[in-house]
Amino acid sequence: MAKLTKRSEDYSKWYNELVVEADLAENSGVRGSMVIKPYGYAIWEKIQQELDRRFKETGHENAYFPLFIPKSYFSKEASHVDGFAKECAVVTHYRLKTSEDGKSIEVDENAKLEEELVVRPTSETIIWDTYRKWIQSYRDLPILVNQWANVVRWEMRTRLFLRTAEFLWQEGHTAHATEQEAIAEAEQMLNVYHDFLATFMAIPAIRGIKSANERFAGAVETYCVEALMQDGKALQAGTSHFLGQNFAKAFDVKFLDKTGKQEYVWATSWGVSTRLMGALIMTHSDDNGLVLPPNLAPFGVVIVPIYKGEEQLNAINEVAFEVKAELEALGIRVKYDNRDTHKPGWKFAEYELKGVPVRLAIGPKDLENGTIEVARRDTLEKELLQRVDIAHKVQHLLARIQENLYDKALTHRDDHTHVVDSWDEFVSVLEEKGGFLMAHWDGTSETEEAIKAATKATIRAIPLDGLEEEGVCVFSGKPSERRVIFAKAY
Amino acid sequence: MAKLTKRSEDYSKWYNELVVEADLAENSGVRGSMVIKPYGYAIWEKIQQELDRRFKETGHENAYFPLFIPKSYFSKEASHVDGFAKECAVVTHYRLKTSEDGKSIEVDENAKLEEELVVRPTSETIIWDTYRKWIQSYRDLPILVNQWANVVRWEMRTRLFLRTAEFLWQEGHTAHATEQEAIAEAEQMLNVYHDFLATFMAIPAIRGIKSANERFAGAVETYCVEALMQDGKALQAGTSHFLGQNFAKAFDVKFLDKTGKQEYVWATSWGVSTRLMGALIMTHSDDNGLVLPPNLAPFGVVIVPIYKGEEQLNAINEVAFEVKAELEALGIRVKYDNRDTHKPGWKFAEYELKGVPVRLAIGPKDLENGTIEVARRDTLEKELLQRVDIAHKVQHLLARIQENLYDKALTHRDDHTHVVDSWDEFVSVLEEKGGFLMAHWDGTSETEEAIKAATKATIRAIPLDGLEEEGVCVFSGKPSERRVIFAKAY
Repeated sequence: MAKLTKRSEDYSKWYNELVVEADLAENSGVRGSMVIKPYGYAIWEKIQQELDRRFKETGHENAYFPLFIPKSYFSKEASHVDGFAKECAVVTHYRLKTSEDGKSIEVDENAKLEEELVVRPTSETIIWDTYRKWIQSYRDLPILVNQWANVVRWEMRTRLFLRTAEFLWQEGHTAHATEQEAIAEAEQMLNVYHDFLATFMAIPAIRGIKSANERFAGAVETYCVEALMQDGKALQAGTSHFLGQNFAKAFDVKFLDKTGKQEYVWATSWGVSTRLMGALIMTHSDDNGLVLPPNLAPFGVVIVPIYKGEEQLNAINEVAFEVKAELEALGIRVKYDNRDTHKPGWKFAEYELKGVPVRLAIGPKDLENGTIEVARRDTLEKELLQRVDIAHKVQHLLARIQENLYDKALTHRDDHTHVVDSWDEFVSVLEEKGGFLMAHWDGTSETEEAIKAATKATIRAIPLDGLEEEGVCVFSGKPSERRVIFAKAY
Repeated sequence: MAKLTKRSEDYSKWYNELVVEADLAENSGVRGSMVIKPYGYAIWEKIQQELDRRFKETGHENAYFPLFIPKSYFSKEASHVDGFAKECAVVTHYRLKTSEDGKSIEVDENAKLEEELVVRPTSETIIWDTYRKWIQSYRDLPILVNQWANVVRWEMRTRLFLRTAEFLWQEGHTAHATEQEAIAEAEQMLNVYHDFLATFMAIPAIRGIKSANERFAGAVETYCVEALMQDGKALQAGTSHFLGQNFAKAFDVKFLDKTGKQEYVWATSWGVSTRLMGALIMTHSDDNGLVLPPNLAPFGVVIVPIYKGEEQLNAINEVAFEVKAELEALGIRVKYDNRDTHKPGWKFAEYELKGVPVRLAIGPKDLENGTIEVARRDTLEKELLQRVDIAHKVQHLLARIQENLYDKALTHRDDHTHVVDSWDEFVSVLEEKGGFLMAHWDGTSETEEAIKAATKATIRAIPLDGLEEEGVCVFSGKPSERRVIFAKAY
């Protein structure tokens, strides 16, 4: 096992190495598509399960819509087509045949589709085409549906989890009788994401609204949760869109309201993706590898025996299996690694790399003294604890680690959130410190684009929790009513 | 709500109507692709969860591999290419552009892929291309991985759940150091399917081996679970393949064994799909609609109030919510439908159509007498039970319904399994009675093909539990060692 590149040397290289070395994902033989390995997928499953629980708790059901979308569907919503139909995978044929020399296979030109099919980059169009059949009257509303699916966006420069041609996600698509109800839904789901990130992934995110430039193609308003990574760059962790009646009008979805009037339906959509794996890594991990919040760990505890010879191992096994059973009785998943093919030192490094929150080591001295060495992954601290009641102590330790990771990330975010009041300050802070820049902005797309062109920083969010505060735009000097968050972003 | 076509009138029409009317699935705007509606998807989720639990219990982990497979991968395994690479969706371009007149979008010919990508019809090739990187020594084996995914096979004639261009499934792909271990794995997973079908879906299936004609393209041996539908046709519910070293050789996957020798890796793959939804429907349902085994029901119990006026409703609400809470305390999911927009008769028909196992009705007389009307969906029987301890009574009833559905399906299978000993008998029983025909067969592909050409019946399985029994082939008169199962199939 080679050591990872240090974050301070090359953050990007560290990230790429960590993803592969910790067995999370790897590049495949298909350009831009990744393989999510079992350990990485087990973490994604924990994310899925908890989100799914929260979606159902808020009244949503799952459904499944087609992978393929007829090309013409994309033309129906004007801004949507610009945002999505361009860089996408297009299915043009439905058959291959053996070449004439019999040595290879080739596309059968006789099997050309009448209308090309786009591999879904997002499903608003196919879903609203379906909702037209489901909705006649106000009694059919609201529709609160979510889909877990794969989507494809043809990205030229890809990075594992952060930007891949194919990725996994969930997309909620809801239909409502009133504008207020749809806005409330979009805001509710933003809060679901925000709370999930904080309490489950230990990621403190800012809730905000996107500027027009960064808005979802087809949305009236895009809400977002924006997190700050260790290197001072922002990562959009999730979005929730109020779509107005745009898709209802594009797909002619009307309903009879209580007064007997035909109205267009109001819509939202909201999603998070395997990108969250990137957020997880770049929020908590260190130069030794992944650091997992206990809520996300495929196993929260690993036990490693330290022994010479079979007799010692047998004695340690006895204690280890007892401890494992006690921990499992508390609902904690435990791995006991007593393989004789690897040395304890190798195992320590391996589980550190994989981010296992707590490691217990048991040696012959521990048997004599009734002790166990407990190491926590987040602080790398070790202590010797009495064997008695070890399970409850570890349970409390796991809770403390979960909290500590959140606190640490919050402190990091606070330390890297800078109030800047002039263009010089904006540029120098961005270059020297990075992070979230709280700056006044005149509200125009032109200024946002000029700032982006000059610095690569974009408006990540107009914070929902931000105070109104009069000021002048750092770039144009024009009046501004509140500070917005600028940052370079993933 | 229109009545369904009767099964005796037109089984196929009954099926199509039921799938749509019971809100399970519907056709989409994309040829051959279905929309799985929330109620149908909730049943699929129950299938998924239980299978996933059983896969993990037997040591498997989930992972995710790319949707797209480079065309050339399919050419590497000779028999596999014939079986799969032909009828498939082919991605040839990665960009659309606005047409010159600005009115539509079209494929950008400048964005043609160097090598076409096939949308996965099954993932052996991309997975074994990946396993080459994961496997060096016997220490890396076995690999026990499963994937939940969507796959696409371009079918010309499609039917909801039974045969769709895109469908959802799981595919297990395992790698082993020895032939015996791989065969044991393929057999283990066959048994997992068989037991799951019996105990969870109440479907009695036959475990067997496929003849060479029906074998998976690339397999050495295909094991199958084969179920008999109400109309006397067979449905392949799942398959488990022993792949030998075929894919290891095609993708050059070798390992260093314990003696230091390079060997090719042994493989299995196994899968079930949303086709199981079709098996579920055609095993248990009746002319009134879907009949769900309690294990698969999104809600096991529905409570319907029968009332005039608000006062009566309030009084019934009180009892209904109590009963609901008692049932939920036993882990039973309950829907209380006290909507005032629909009459009780409408609700009765609706939940019958949707297959809810138990319906409780509470009216004013019941309040007086301390009774509740309990109706079971499987037999359509009703009885008046005392309110006291109703939750436990319903719990037992649900268990009885689960058992009864299995017993009924088993009886149906037994009644429609016919031993036939001559060609005349074969033809007349197949035409007049349908079902499973237990017949002697000479073991050759020629005979199997001739029988298929003459009758449309194929060998569904060479039963694993079948006795050796000398005989002569019903078609050729040549010697045979055991009976095999012929049937027409979905």
